[in-house]
Parts: sequence; structure tokens; C-alpha cells
Amino acid sequence: MTRMKLTLCLLASATLSTFAQTPSVAGHWLASTDYFGTPLYYRLNLEQTGDKLTGTYRGYKFEGTINGDNFHLFAKDEQGNTDELTGAVANGTLQATDTETDSDNKAHPVTLKIKATPIAPLAHLTPQRHEFTPTVFYRQISTLNKPVLTINPGDTIHTTTVDAGGTDFNGVKRSLGGNPETGPFFVTGAMPGDVLVVHIKKLTLNRDWAISDDGLDERAMNSDLAVKMKDVGKGIRWHLDRTAGTATPADPAEHLKRYTVPLKPMLGCISAAPGTAQAPPGSGDSGGYGGNMDFNEVGEGATVYLRVSNPGALLYFGDGHAAQGDGELNGNALETSMDVELTVDVIPNKRIGDPRVETANEIISMGLGGSIDDAFKGATNDMANWLEEDYKLTPSEIAQVLGTSAEYHVSEVADRNAGVVLKISKARLATLTK
Amino acid sequence: MTRMKLTLCLLASATLSTFAQTPSVAGHWLASTDYFGTPLYYRLNLEQTGDKLTGTYRGYKFEGTINGDNFHLFAKDEQGNTDELTGAVANGTLQATDTETDSDNKAHPVTLKIKATPIAPLAHLTPQRHEFTPTVFYRQISTLNKPVLTINPGDTIHTTTVDAGGTDFNGVKRSLGGNPETGPFFVTGAMPGDVLVVHIKKLTLNRDWAISDDGLDERAMNSDLAVKMKDVGKGIRWHLDRTAGTATPADPAEHLKRYTVPLKPMLGCISAAPGTAQAPPGSGDSGGYGGNMDFNEVGEGATVYLRVSNPGALLYFGDGHAAQGDGELNGNALETSMDVELTVDVIPNKRIGDPRVETANEIISMGLGGSIDDAFKGATNDMANWLEEDYKLTPSEIAQVLGTSAEYHVSEVADRNAGVVLKISKARLATLTK
Amino acid sequence: MTRMKLTLCLLASATLSTFAQTPSVAGHWLASTDYFGTPLYYRLNLEQTGDKLTGTYRGYKFEGTINGDNFHLFAKDEQGNTDELTGAVANGTLQATDTETDSDNKAHPVTLKIKATPIAPLAHLTPQRHEFTPTVFYRQISTLNKPVLTINPGDTIHTTTVDAGGTDFNGVKRSLGGNPETGPFFVTGAMPGDVLVVHIKKLTLNRDWAISDDGLDERAMNSDLAVKMKDVGKGIRWHLDRTAGTATPADPAEHLKRYTVPLKPMLGCISAAPGTAQAPPGSGDSGGYGGNMDFNEVGEGATVYLRVSNPGALLYFGDGHAAQGDGELNGNALETSMDVELTVDVIPNKRIGDPRVETANEIISMGLGGSIDDAFKGATNDMANWLEEDYKLTPSEIAQVLGTSAEYHVSEVADRNAGVVLKISKARLATLTK
Amino acid sequence: MTRMKLTLCLLASATLSTFAQTPSVAGHWLASTDYFGTPLYYRLNLEQTGDKLTGTYRGYKFEGTINGDNFHLFAKDEQGNTDELTGAVANGTLQATDTETDSDNKAHPVTLKIKATPIAPLAHLTPQRHEFTPTVFYRQISTLNKPVLTINPGDTIHTTTVDAGGTDFNGVKRSLGGNPETGPFFVTGAMPGDVLVVHIKKLTLNRDWAISDDGLDERAMNSDLAVKMKDVGKGIRWHLDRTAGTATPADPAEHLKRYTVPLKPMLGCISAAPGTAQAPPGSGDSGGYGGNMDFNEVGEGATVYLRVSNPGALLYFGDGHAAQGDGELNGNALETSMDVELTVDVIPNKRIGDPRVETANEIISMGLGGSIDDAFKGATNDMANWLEEDYKLTPSEIAQVLGTSAEYHVSEVADRNAGVVLKISKARLATLTK
Repeated sequence: MTRMKLTLCLLASATLSTFAQTPSVAGHWLASTDYFGTPLYYRLNLEQTGDKLTGTYRGYKFEGTINGDNFHLFAKDEQGNTDELTGAVANGTLQATDTETDSDNKAHPVTLKIKATPIAPLAHLTPQRHEFTPTVFYRQISTLNKPVLTINPGDTIHTTTVDAGGTDFNGVKRSLGGNPETGPFFVTGAMPGDVLVVHIKKLTLNRDWAISDDGLDERAMNSDLAVKMKDVGKGIRWHLDRTAGTATPADPAEHLKRYTVPLKPMLGCISAAPGTAQAPPGSGDSGGYGGNMDFNEVGEGATVYLRVSNPGALLYFGDGHAAQGDGELNGNALETSMDVELTVDVIPNKRIGDPRVETANEIISMGLGGSIDDAFKGATNDMANWLEEDYKLTPSEIAQVLGTSAEYHVSEVADRNAGVVLKISKARLATLTK
Repeated sequence: MTRMKLTLCLLASATLSTFAQTPSVAGHWLASTDYFGTPLYYRLNLEQTGDKLTGTYRGYKFEGTINGDNFHLFAKDEQGNTDELTGAVANGTLQATDTETDSDNKAHPVTLKIKATPIAPLAHLTPQRHEFTPTVFYRQISTLNKPVLTINPGDTIHTTTVDAGGTDFNGVKRSLGGNPETGPFFVTGAMPGDVLVVHIKKLTLNRDWAISDDGLDERAMNSDLAVKMKDVGKGIRWHLDRTAGTATPADPAEHLKRYTVPLKPMLGCISAAPGTAQAPPGSGDSGGYGGNMDFNEVGEGATVYLRVSNPGALLYFGDGHAAQGDGELNGNALETSMDVELTVDVIPNKRIGDPRVETANEIISMGLGGSIDDAFKGATNDMANWLEEDYKLTPSEIAQVLGTSAEYHVSEVADRNAGVVLKISKARLATLTK
Repeated sequence: MTRMKLTLCLLASATLSTFAQTPSVAGHWLASTDYFGTPLYYRLNLEQTGDKLTGTYRGYKFEGTINGDNFHLFAKDEQGNTDELTGAVANGTLQATDTETDSDNKAHPVTLKIKATPIAPLAHLTPQRHEFTPTVFYRQISTLNKPVLTINPGDTIHTTTVDAGGTDFNGVKRSLGGNPETGPFFVTGAMPGDVLVVHIKKLTLNRDWAISDDGLDERAMNSDLAVKMKDVGKGIRWHLDRTAGTATPADPAEHLKRYTVPLKPMLGCISAAPGTAQAPPGSGDSGGYGGNMDFNEVGEGATVYLRVSNPGALLYFGDGHAAQGDGELNGNALETSMDVELTVDVIPNKRIGDPRVETANEIISMGLGGSIDDAFKGATNDMANWLEEDYKLTPSEIAQVLGTSAEYHVSEVADRNAGVVLKISKARLATLTK
Repeated sequence: MTRMKLTLCLLASATLSTFAQTPSVAGHWLASTDYFGTPLYYRLNLEQTGDKLTGTYRGYKFEGTINGDNFHLFAKDEQGNTDELTGAVANGTLQATDTETDSDNKAHPVTLKIKATPIAPLAHLTPQRHEFTPTVFYRQISTLNKPVLTINPGDTIHTTTVDAGGTDFNGVKRSLGGNPETGPFFVTGAMPGDVLVVHIKKLTLNRDWAISDDGLDERAMNSDLAVKMKDVGKGIRWHLDRTAGTATPADPAEHLKRYTVPLKPMLGCISAAPGTAQAPPGSGDSGGYGGNMDFNEVGEGATVYLRVSNPGALLYFGDGHAAQGDGELNGNALETSMDVELTVDVIPNKRIGDPRVETANEIISMGLGGSIDDAFKGATNDMANWLEEDYKLTPSEIAQVLGTSAEYHVSEVADRNAGVVLKISKARLATLTK
């Protein structure tokens, strides 16, 4: 069997215009439950008209009534599965019994206890700057790792990352390799069903060398090239000249004695931890939560949008590259430690699919899939959604814009997921009529 | 960055003819180390001639000397990375200091403490039969889950599995869905670098219904078919007639009122936990360790070969299907609980790539990859290795046998990895000259 | 630009219950036109009610009127393109002016002259057997090659084919290689919009040797296997023992001295020529018209269904294989000349997509595409159409049947198109309620 | 069977430093033969030392002797196939008997008559400018179409192309659609084994409208997007403002009333006809010969390199696009007629794989394949060859340059072949040490 019931993976997407401000049942709630040992978090959005209640929870649309503090809600999806919530609000906390019945196993419903707390509107606090020195580096993007720091939306983090092999700016090994990351950072107020906004303000190299290798990834080689490359694969050390802004091989081969690559620092990994129903991915993987995307425009000035699946978002990042060609063909880019400064924000109650990136001149969707072909479809689909949601384009309009303005790069082939990015220039978007 | 240094993932593959029987340094050792908080296990194989030592460890070939109980070993690979082991044997335990130096960061070697215990030859004990009633079901194929039972090679386990949604033979939900599994079983004497052999003796349905659905997987649909299928996806309950050996839809649609499928029970998931350097995969994933392969010939009478990456192998299984077409197109097959009886064995010091299956009439390699195309390459490559290693065929002979005898099925398209199996009939193999 | 307007490629699919028997405008017509030097053939189906006319032509649905012998028809598609037919019937021939107007270039319609002759119901003549000795072998599946023989539906052809390299049963080269084929055979009464039915009655080897090689196809090799196979690729001659029914390497390598493959003759190529708007494909290609499918069940007893795109269907076949594993991994199977006996028939006015095959126990759809992944989607889509059209299944029912009964083989990887076949057992289909 | 013997497809690649200037057997010859009705052309390169001869022909390396005018040459490849040439030179013409023997069918060699004429060094004539008005447009890239004009290397052609649907600058239909092309142009002195260089000097729009549509290609759509796009696909007319340099929808939808695309004219199709052993491809296909590549940088200022397979190269081009996003997602770009000015040149005796493009700032390899994944491999392989041949890089150096400098675009997904281009900046190449 492939997948859990889809409904368990869906997050509410309602766009209620009011937030809970009084101790009423109406509003946005963060609901938590224990599902046979697994803690699950969902957004519960409720609206009230007289004694009528409507709402969304776990992707279901509910209808019901409220009588004083006591409410009853019921939902049935197209597949015939039902969900029933019976509970009450007391002292600002909502408690309910959730009865889930699968259409193909009606005799044995599952009954869960739910406890929910109000999701407050995002506070507009004075932005703070946090100097953070990491002492532990995680190799799983897990909700089980304890947050290393709690910050507010608007705040700035200034910290460092070790390289993909776990070596820090002093050249000292700090962790097993495989992209050990700095974090998780807990962002106050970020809730499942929100979007985490990460603006990379500064990305500075903090040592003068990087490691890489001279192999080519499997996805890049047909059989002729595989035979040509059969004897390569050794480590290559690069010298990083931070003054000149260039990288050169430390011990260059004959034809590379003058070969010079401009430095263009980037973060290979950035993510908001996926939901607890999913096994925590390793730091070499990627998905809708972000992860090891290895896209060479996730650098200074870029903004990354990530879907939030857990309270606090749980932001991780690492795997700095001093420079990287499209595709990260060597498996390793110019891997190095970094000095990182980024600002976080939250867009409440907005749902996105795969990670999105925005640069000075472009919006960029990203497809991640088991083949470049699948990643290409994913990037196109997500940009179509983006144009539909944020620019209100119809399917015909979407096709016309994509046909004339799409710019596709293959961003990554060296990880388990291949990546394709689809860019649309902001200048072009500026000619759309909203 | 993609991957950890490859060498960290390699297991020794030497085929020494003698096992450690006296407290000597020569022999096979299970070495363990703590790598910045991550426990790692490797096989250390050593041979002694006079005061000369040779051996394999972590994929490196070592040379060195021994002086009394004290030894020194050194290895250098083609990439210029080096590894140095200095230590002694006392009281049947080997302790050493391991100094690893990367060629591209020579100034900062990593120093680890290693402790090793002898790998004894497999004991030939009287096979035992274990009745095991599971009380917990795991959704990660992790070394962190405590073994539920310890068994010996040759032993038989008789137990049950819940269905992919976590529901048991009584129809009672026991776990969050996503293929919760029975296990892990610790197999005494199974060591990293061995092969775990699992012979499925009996696979019996223990309830009279299964759940499935009427959707089609993304990988099966071009755009025309996606539009045709846009309104399906609901749960479908199947009635299992264990006497007649057939399955029929419980509430059949108009043209399926007589539609009948023969029961052919199988296990969707079976695995020996992957190494500790890797994030423990969820029970919906698959890989070289096995996992959610969803191959419809992993049923009664089949033997599954899995590579061992941890002491005790850590066998998990679950996700029983009453029947399944090739590809598991609905994402769910006929998901049901099972009564399982299987026998385990160990092939010491043999290395295989992806999981292999053997049935009464065929040997079967399995490719798992992000696309059917990649899975096809994987299955072909692994069968080529199999024919080379076990049948001693040359590349030319391999091509001739595959060209005339290959039978390829698409085994799975509904999981993250697609699966392709390559079968060669044993009758055909019987005409090879070894 | 990719494609011609899709409408030019569509054939009418109406299922009128009456055929033209009197010199009336109502009925089925074979229309021909000259499109700037390219002859095009389409089916024109017309129905009359009083002075009202309706019909289909070039995928358009027409409406109009008839006044004596003079008629006028008009069609407009969803894209706003229009087509207008004005003409008359005289002496059993329909002549018309066809005015096509593209919605995006209305100022410049295209005007064509059309001439049409009635499509008579298929005659039920006494089946004949034709002994045919080929003297020319074609390497393009072209309408420009003159038919070598005209036959009727129900007739049997007995003839021979040369091997893929152009060598005949005497070992004499007769053509440049690349699957030179026997044909084309003109089947009287076969019209665009029909299906050609080819039943392979006998496939007999007519020499005692075949040629092959010991390479592996690009699609089968990952980089490890490419390196392993880097030095193979030579020709391998096989001995065919027609009495024993076996093939063995003529000069076997060490481990293949007893290696024996059962003979299972098949035709690698069979096709009904594609429409004239398309460049005639080479005999190594494949597509909706059939061609070089290299599916190892197109052998004795199999029936192949091919869409008809030209008057007379223009049947070609060749590329006999004495035996072939799935995928034809060597690029060459056991290539040999053949003695072929087949019977042809026509299903009038029925439209199918890709080629279909029927054997004693199964119906088989075939996907052909640029990757195995795409071929997999194609095979699934065509089987879904087959189950919908011939078994009247709903989308939900299709998914349930495919999920429980699909059997997928990878049929071919060595040609430009990969091939995947999807089989459903007739025993399973017999439990469907029509 | 897939392919003809590979050797038939190979062209000689020797790099002799001298050209035939005296009536000697030594030098470069254009050999022609008739292979069972198919004319074939190959380059025959011969060197003489005393009475010893060595040479290359059909990919074989020959050795032999010459005695007066009479010579004898023999070659044997790794597969054991042999080729023997026996003949003489008289009156500046070489005539020989060619005896080809396949290792797997030695009893039946094929004997051919060969006639060869000297390949003269390219003449350096005064470049001419040709004004050419096309009257016929071809839909097959065939050697059978009579050249419309003969030109010399260095000459410039000024002509026009019709749009992909066959409509000219007056809006008048001139051909059936599917990329009818202008040409073929015969380039004097261009020989099999050379490279044709096409420099696009000017690409000017010659009408103020283009046609396109609002569909999305199959390769761009996952199932969600296919459902979203299920009702689109109509023709869209664009207005081309040649003064402002912009394109806008002629009848814009609500949100596209101000939508504006910069004009960037390009040629979708450009090719040198493939060899005669291959079926002539339709004008919608692509391959090593070029063809319908639909790469949006094949515009003004770009240089295209195409392998020559026939005497005179036989240059075709057409399918002008006023603008096109990456991938040509609509299947149609902004299809329009063009005023084209281009200069041709020839690089003698150099062999390339797939088409290559050079722009002001980059060199660009192109992969064409049945999937984006395969096209990606192809582009990488061809760039590796380019860096090896023209920049003398070792495999290790190639990997380092690609890993740090590769820029990949998906150029085309709407044709049978997908296209991926790999760009390396000339600034980066300038730091290589030759």
C-alpha cells in the first residue's frame, strides 16, 4: 500500500477573515491529538452564524450547531468517509471527541480526543536580531529535535552552518556528514496551514576552502559518458578567495591552472519540518517541506516560501555551497561552511504545494520528483496554481502566459529527487491585469 | 550536497575461509563506533601471516603488522583518503583508534574509538518455532525500535500483521496507517555484510474483508486518462471468500456484480533495517533494505534475500494484500490483515545490492527507482551482478542470456519508488555450465 | 511547432447502422482531396432525415441540408474553426468544395476540391489462399510503395520474410538492413476509420541459423552496467534446431556450451501504413500504425488489431525472430527469415488508438513512447479505453479491474519507442457483466 | 530488430593534414555505392607510404598496398566483420569492389561496386549573396527533394519561410501544415564527415500576426494540471507590433489585456539532411541532423553546427517563431512567417554528434531524446565530448568544469523528442588552459 488516506495529509485552506479574539468557538484553532502514539497537529477553522457552525478540519468541510459552549459538527466526503466532532469550549480551550469512520470499514470507527487552543493573529512585535551559535547539527528534519531557539515573525537570525560533511569554519569535524543542519528554530505563531517566509539577507563565506569531487551524477550519464568517466570520483579541494570573490582548484589539473569560478554562495538545504504523520526525512532528501533542494539561486537576496506543518514551523538550514552549476553534477558542489543571516515571517492561513522562491526579478516554482520529467510536470503544475491563486488567471490565460514566458532550469539531479525550476519574470507579470 | 562519502556506506566483502575461533586478531569482527552521536556498525575482516596483517573495513583494504596483541593497519583509497587503525586485542575484544583523513581536508583528521567483538560462525541449533502476538506496530524501519523477539537462523516465526491502514483481524484500528509493521525481529548472528534469507512458508488471510479504492496512480495516467478518472477515488470494500479462494467487491458496481479475483496473499513490506548512518525510512518507502516493495510474488513459497546492515538484521514485515495486480494501480491493493509464518536464515559474508526474490521456478531481481525507466536499469544491473557472481558468466554471456531469457514485469508504480522485476527461469539457468 | 491541427489527424468515429446501398448522399463515403500536393483520405459519414443532413468528416460534426442532389454542410468546433462543404452527388460520386477556416486566420480560408466514392459493406466472399513470393522488400512504411498483392477480407497470405538485416532463407542478402518488410498488401474494402485484423496462423522457421549480438541496449544500463559492458557488442550466430525446437549459440562461450533457448517465432514488425499527412516512417520505428513493436507474443495464434488510415490498409510485416526475451535487450533478437501464413479481416468503422493484440488467453494493449514511463501510461490508457468501449465499464469499474487484474510486461526497449504491454486474462473478463 | 549494423552509420573521422591535389590514390574521396537500390555516400580517406596504404572508410580502419594504379585494402573490426576493397584509380576516379563479410554470416558476403571522386579542399571564393524566393515547401527532410539552389561556403542566403501551418507573409496557405520548410540548399564542397556552419545574420518578421493556442503539452502536465486544463486548446491569434518589438494577444482574455511579450524571432527548424540509409524524417521530428529543435536561442546572431551526411549538406529551415517560452509548452509558439538571412560555411573532416549552437556569450550543446531525462544525458555527453575534443580536457577536468559552470535549460517538450540544452559561458572557457 502506498499512502495513508489522503485526508490525513490535507490541511485546512479556508480563508476566514476574522481571527479568534474572544473566547468563542468561532475562529482558528490549533488542534492536537494523539493517534495511537503519534501526535498530530491540524488547523481547525470555525465560523458561527446564530447557532449554526461551519468549519474546516483535516481537509473536511464540517457543518453543525452550537448550544452554549457545546457544539456538534459533522462532515462527509465524496468517498463516503465521515467525521464527527462533539465537544465544548471552556477556559479558552476547545476539547472534543473526534469520531472518524471509513466508508469501507463502517463497523469500526476510530475515536480520538482532541484538544485545541486558539490561533492568535500574528503579533507585530519589534523585530529582534538573534546571534546564535550552534552546538548541535541535525541529520533528520524531525519534529523530535528540540528547538534550539524561539523567535518571532519579523526577527532576524545570525548564525553559522557547517559544510555538508559536518566540518565547521575551523576545519573541525562536528558531525557525521550528509548535510547536518543548523536548527530547528521555533517561529512563534507559525501554525499548520501557514506559509513560512525566509528572506536570506546575507550569506558569507567563513573559511577559504571548499571540498568537492570530480565525479558525475548517474542522472547525467548515458553509457558512453559512464565509460568515459569510469576512473574519476576523487575529492577535489577548492581555494576560496573571498576578497576577489572567486574559487579555484587548490591543486589544479593541467588545463585548469587558470580556471576560475565566481563565488555565489547558496544554501543547499532549507526546510520547515514536515508533519508528524510522516517519517522524518534525512537531511539529504527533499519534498514539499523543502529540504535538500540544491538550487543555486537560494542565495543572498532570495526569499523562500515553505509550507508550515507543525506549530512553530521548525526551520532548519545548512549545506552551504560557495558556488554550484545547475544540477550539482558532481554530487558535491563547492561545499563549505557559512555565516548566515536571514529574516523569517509568516503568511497565515495560506496553502502552497512545493517550495517557492522569489528573487529580485523573478518568481520561481520548483518541481521535485523521481525523474527530471516528473519534476518538470511538478514545477509547471505549481506555477499554474500560483498564477491561478495569486494572479487570478484562467486555465486559458495560464497556458498563454506559460507558453510565452516560461524559463525552465534543471536545478538538481544529484539527489534522490531531481529538481526543475520554472521562472517567470516579474516584468512580464507586471503586464497582467489583476 | 547529495551523499556522504561513499566509503562510509560500503561494507566489507571479503570471503575469508576461516572464522575466528581462538582469541586472535585474525577473523571476522563486528566493529562499532560512535560518530558524533551516531552509532555505526561495520564488519572488520582480518587475516594474519606471521606478523603481517591484511584486512577490510569500511570498504577499505588495509595492510599492517601485529606485535603481540598490538596491531597497526593502514589503508589509502584511489581518492587519496587514508584510514589508520591502531589498537590491541584483549579478553576477546578488539579496541582501536581509527584515524580517518580526507584527501581534501588533510589538516583535520577525524579520530574515533572503535570496539569490536568476534563474529562467531553461525550456530546450527535446533530450529524453533515462535508464536508471536504483536502489540506494537512500527511506521519507521528504524534501529531505534526495540526488537520484539530474538530468534536464531533456521527458526520459524508465526505471527500476524495488521493491514496497511493499521486495522487488525478483528477490524480494530491499532495504529496510524501507512503500513504499520510487525517486528523488528533480531536474528542472532546476522551481521552487517551478511544476507538475510526469509522464506515465506504460509500466508493466510485472517478476516473476510479487505479495503481498497477505485483511483489510479499518477504514474499510470496520461492526460486523457487523468481527465477520464477525475471523479473517482473512493474507498472500495472487498469480500474475501477464504473457502472459495476468491475476492469480490462487497457492494459491486453494475458491471462487476460477478467480477471475481482469485486470492493470492502477499506481503507488501519486508525489510532488514538499513544502516544507522541513514535516516530511518518510513514504512511506505523502499530501497536496498527492502521495504514497501509491493511485489505480488512475495507470497507463500517465495524466498526473499535482504542485505544485512545491522547486528541482528532487524526484520520487519507487514502490509498484507489479499490480491494485487501488477503495479498496485489503485495505490491500495486488497489491503487486509494476515496470519504469517516464515523461516529466517543467514548467508554470512555475502553482499547483494537490491532485494532479490526466488520462487519455485524463477530467480528474480528487483529494480527500485524514481522512474520506471530507472527501475528497469536497476533490475537489469542487479541480475547482471547475480549472473556474474553466482553463475560466473562473462559480460558477453550475461548479454546473451538476458537477451534470450529476460522476463520483465512492472511490479509497482504506486509508491515513491517504482519497481521493475526481472525474472530468469530456473529451467533456463539449468542449461548454464558453471 | 509540433503538430498539425489535431483535427486533420482525426478520423470519423460514427457508428451508423446502415450502409450506402442506393445512390443517395446518406451513407459512408471515402473522400479524397489534394492538399497542396499531398493526397489525403478521410471517411465521410452522412445521415439524412427529410432534407436535413448530419454527418462526420475530419473529426468535425456537420449539419446541413440537401436539395435534390445538392447539399450544404457546416461545422464549427470548440476552437472556433469552421468547415463548410458544398456539393452534389451524381453518378454515384460525391463532389464538393471544402472551405476550411481557422479561427486565428479567418481572412484566409483554404478551399479544397473533394471527391468521394461510396464505402460498400464488406463483401462476404469465399476466402482465398494466396501464395506470394516477395521480390522487393521495403524499408519505409509508405503509401507510395505499390501494393504487391490485392486480397479480400477473409483471405490468407502465405509468404516469406527476410531477416532484419535483409538476408533470406538461402543466406543471400536481398536488401539493406533495418527490417526490410514484405508487402504492402492491399485489402479490398479496408477504409480509413476501420480496423485491420491480422490473425497469425503459422510462423515457421525456414533456415537453421539466426544472427544476434552480445550488447545491451542503452535503456537497460545504468552507469555501473555500462562500464561492465564496455567491451561487448560483437555479432553472435545462433543455430536453430527446428526439429528439437531449440536455439543454441553456434560457437558458444565457456558457460553457454549447454545453454538452450526454446524457439518461439514471432514477427518484430507488422503495420497498416499511417496516413499520408505524416512522413512515412522507417521500418525501424513504431507508432499507432504498428511497426517495429518487437513484442514476443506476436507469434503463431496471435491476432493483431491495427487502425486503418488508407484505402486498402496497406499491410506490411517482417523482422522475424526465432526467439526473444522481453525488451529485446541485445538490440537484435535471434534474427532470421520466416515462412509466414496469416489471415486478414476488417472491422468496419471502428476506431482504436495504439495496436492491440489478442492471444488465446488474454487481451493485450500496447503503449509505445519515448520512455518506459510514457509507454506504461499509454498501455494503461488504451486498456481503459478498451474496457470502456467494448465492456462498457465506468471509470470506477475500470480502476477496480485494472487494480486487481493488470499484468504488465516491458515488451521492448531497444527501439526509438519503448513498449509496455498490459494484459488482462479472458477468464477474468468473463466474470464481467456486460 | 532495432538498428542496422552500427558500422553502416559511422563516418570516417580521420584528420589527415593533406588533401588530394594530384591524381593519386592518397587523399580524401567521396565514395558512392548502390546498396540494393539505396544510394549510399561515405568519405574514404587514404594515406600512402611507399606501396603501403592505410585509410578509413565506413568506420573501419584499412591497411593494404598499391601497385601502380591498382590497390587492395582490408579491414577487420573487433566484432570480426571484415571489409575488402580492391580497385584502381584512373582519370581521377577511383573504382573498387567492396566485399563485406559479417562475422555471423561468413558464407554469404555482400559485394558492392564503389565509385569515388576526390574531395577537393574548400575553395575560397568571393562570398555571394543569393536572393531566393521559395515556391515549394517540403515536409520531409529528404535527399530526394531536388535542391532549390546551389551555393558556396561563405555565401549568404536571403529568403523567406512560411509559418508552421504553411501560411506565408500574405496570409496565404502554401502547403499542408507541420513545419513546411524552405530548401534544400546544396552547399558546394560539403561532404559526409564535415560540419555545416550556419550563421543566422538576420531574422525579420514579415507580417504582423502569429498563430498559437492555449493548450499545454502532455509532457508538462501531471494529472492535476491535466484536469485543470481539460477544456482549453483553442487557437489564439497574436498581434505582432514590429515597431515596438512586442507581441500581444489579438483578442485578449480578461487578465491579458495588457500582457506583452518581447519579440525574439527564432527558427524552430534547421537541418542538414540525414544519410540515405535512414528513412527521411518528417519536418516535425528532430535528431542528430537537427530538425524541429524549437530552441528559442536559434535566432539572430546565433551559429548552428550540423553534421553533414550527404554531398552538398542539403540545408533546410523554417518554422519561424516570433517568440517562444522554454519548452514551447503550447505545442505552437507564436508561429509566423519570416524573412531570413543566413551565411553558411563548412568545417571539413570534423565529426560532431548532436547539433550545437553558439551565441555571443555561450557554447551550447543540445540533447534530444524520448524523455527529458534522456535529453539531459545527451546534452551532458555532447558537451563532455566538446570539451574533450576542442579544449583537450581530461575526464576529471570535464567533471570539474561541468560541476561549476553548467547551465541547463529545458528547450523543448512539445515534439516527439524532448530537448535539453547545456550552456557554458565563453568567459568561463577563457580561463581554461589549452
